[in-house]
Amino acid sequence: MQQNIHGGDIYSRPVRLDFSVNGNPLGMPAEARLSLLAAINHVGEYPDAAAGELTETVSHMLSVQSGREIPKEYLLFGNGASELFLAIVHALKPKNIVIPVPSFYGYEYAAKAADSHIKYAYLWEETAFCPGKELLQALTADTDLLFLANPNNPTGQLLGREYLLELLEHCRQQEIIVVLDECFIEFCETDREQPRSLLGKIDQYENLLLVRAFTKSFAMPGVRLGYLVCSNEGLREKIRRQLPEWNLSVFAQRAGIVCAEQAEQYLQDTVEYVKTKRAYLREGLEALGIRVVSGEADFLLLYTTQPIYDRLLAKGILIRNCENFRGLGEGYYRIAVKKQEENEVLLRELAMGD
Amino acid sequence: MQQNIHGGDIYSRPVRLDFSVNGNPLGMPAEARLSLLAAINHVGEYPDAAAGELTETVSHMLSVQSGREIPKEYLLFGNGASELFLAIVHALKPKNIVIPVPSFYGYEYAAKAADSHIKYAYLWEETAFCPGKELLQALTADTDLLFLANPNNPTGQLLGREYLLELLEHCRQQEIIVVLDECFIEFCETDREQPRSLLGKIDQYENLLLVRAFTKSFAMPGVRLGYLVCSNEGLREKIRRQLPEWNLSVFAQRAGIVCAEQAEQYLQDTVEYVKTKRAYLREGLEALGIRVVSGEADFLLLYTTQPIYDRLLAKGILIRNCENFRGLGEGYYRIAVKKQEENEVLLRELAMGD
Repeated sequence: MQQNIHGGDIYSRPVRLDFSVNGNPLGMPAEARLSLLAAINHVGEYPDAAAGELTETVSHMLSVQSGREIPKEYLLFGNGASELFLAIVHALKPKNIVIPVPSFYGYEYAAKAADSHIKYAYLWEETAFCPGKELLQALTADTDLLFLANPNNPTGQLLGREYLLELLEHCRQQEIIVVLDECFIEFCETDREQPRSLLGKIDQYENLLLVRAFTKSFAMPGVRLGYLVCSNEGLREKIRRQLPEWNLSVFAQRAGIVCAEQAEQYLQDTVEYVKTKRAYLREGLEALGIRVVSGEADFLLLYTTQPIYDRLLAKGILIRNCENFRGLGEGYYRIAVKKQEENEVLLRELAMGD
Repeated sequence: MQQNIHGGDIYSRPVRLDFSVNGNPLGMPAEARLSLLAAINHVGEYPDAAAGELTETVSHMLSVQSGREIPKEYLLFGNGASELFLAIVHALKPKNIVIPVPSFYGYEYAAKAADSHIKYAYLWEETAFCPGKELLQALTADTDLLFLANPNNPTGQLLGREYLLELLEHCRQQEIIVVLDECFIEFCETDREQPRSLLGKIDQYENLLLVRAFTKSFAMPGVRLGYLVCSNEGLREKIRRQLPEWNLSVFAQRAGIVCAEQAEQYLQDTVEYVKTKRAYLREGLEALGIRVVSGEADFLLLYTTQPIYDRLLAKGILIRNCENFRGLGEGYYRIAVKKQEENEVLLRELAMGD
């Protein structure tokens, strides 16, 4: 069976349920869908190269989320987070990049585009795939850049706030730029006092490039919209120069504006929904003898020796085979937390066997 | 009055008629609009990273256009031509780039992103803004890359086929990569025997990167879709690595497929329409004492000492002030060939004076 480097490839085989892609199970807000409809009337116009209205709205969304002002100047938008990862390496030409693995392949893709040397910092299931002192030790004076996801993908593990701050401080001292990928953080429960995101710390770390996307949080991978937040003007301008002049379509801008306007309530509902459905899936999977990693995002990493990938695909259900993730191997799979009725179908099909 | 580096900025002032943007005056094909509507149902899916169906359709369109097979392997798609220009310089890291001017600012933008040294080859109105021997002389052994537009923007001038082939041959001998921007060529009259495009020569020049876009030909700048054609596999793969993994939205792919399917008849109608309306506009402008450069695209370059920019903007009509084009100066303006009734409004307003 053909397997891909990423999830979501529904183009090379028949799929009725796609558990390989992990976007918001609530889907896109209905009003955002309407904004896409309205955008069709504007395809004959160049998109706003400055993304003025989008920038205002996202700045407001992030200020509400973090409880402190995130100035609009701190924002830079991309045609998906993947465009921003490339722009970052094009701007910084890092000689040495550290990537903890297993993680999202996109970091390796970007590092290779820049012909950077990559040092992989391996995470182990024995320590719940969480980085520790070894990662700090791997970040030496010759390191230029660290790609780090919080929560990580495909493990779903969140990093402790204290550890993250220690890491950032260490990197600042070593003059290492940290690309902190928070593309899944809006699915995680948070706490006003001890927030999961480092957004509130953006002013304090000039070496921090915080990357997020609308792709996952608002279930719109087909639209392409990501952004980065950075308080370091010089760094931002270097990256901006590596982005095409009209990189955001009129669709991305209009949908982004509406999603950002609705974010507060929508993401609160999302966190609640994901939490209960994740717990349901987890219990169901464990009852079937499948090992589940204790992730906190809108997906779960599993391990089983049963041939569940082929078995599910034969039934039109696509899951993410994680065999090709560096640092994982045969038997690891990632499934999205989807709508309750879809999760039920998955568990039922798994229970039925061949 | 605020002026911008590009046309199409309708976001910073009130505009009822935008002559600064030069897309197809017939607009987007109606079926392409319907395909955008259908695409809204697919925004929750990742776009096809391989752009399979789009590649097939565009390969077929180009084969019909050029009268020879353009294999689908020769194609590489971008989020607009501007993304491709950046990917090209990221891939090739050219030390020395030659850019004839006046021309599209995007080449300079790309060259600066790569920190390349730029040698400008000036074109003069006295020689109808056409390059000659001086350009060949400027392309020396230390040149790595040439950006060249045919027809050129903002002059609308087409290059002679013999001259173009001589230039390409010269560049091949000097190991210079030629980025030939044909974004406006589908508006020009052509001839089966002596085609304006070099598409039919793509196999013979391994140093040729032919760039086009759907932006202008199908009036969809808001969607973002461009492509390059190149017979040199090594070169193509180098460039591909510099593009984000899902750089085309579901909107770009679906609209592109429909436009390519309809291209033959639609572009034939377009050439005919543009030809008559351009002649009408030209005559009208000259009757008003305005000098018009003899361009063959869907826009015209003008020169006048009258303050027509501010005068038209006060009436809600935006034209492109070309003062900031390197190699032009005060008094040059570019106007799009638009629908007949719009062209009439423009001429009427110009005739009325203040």
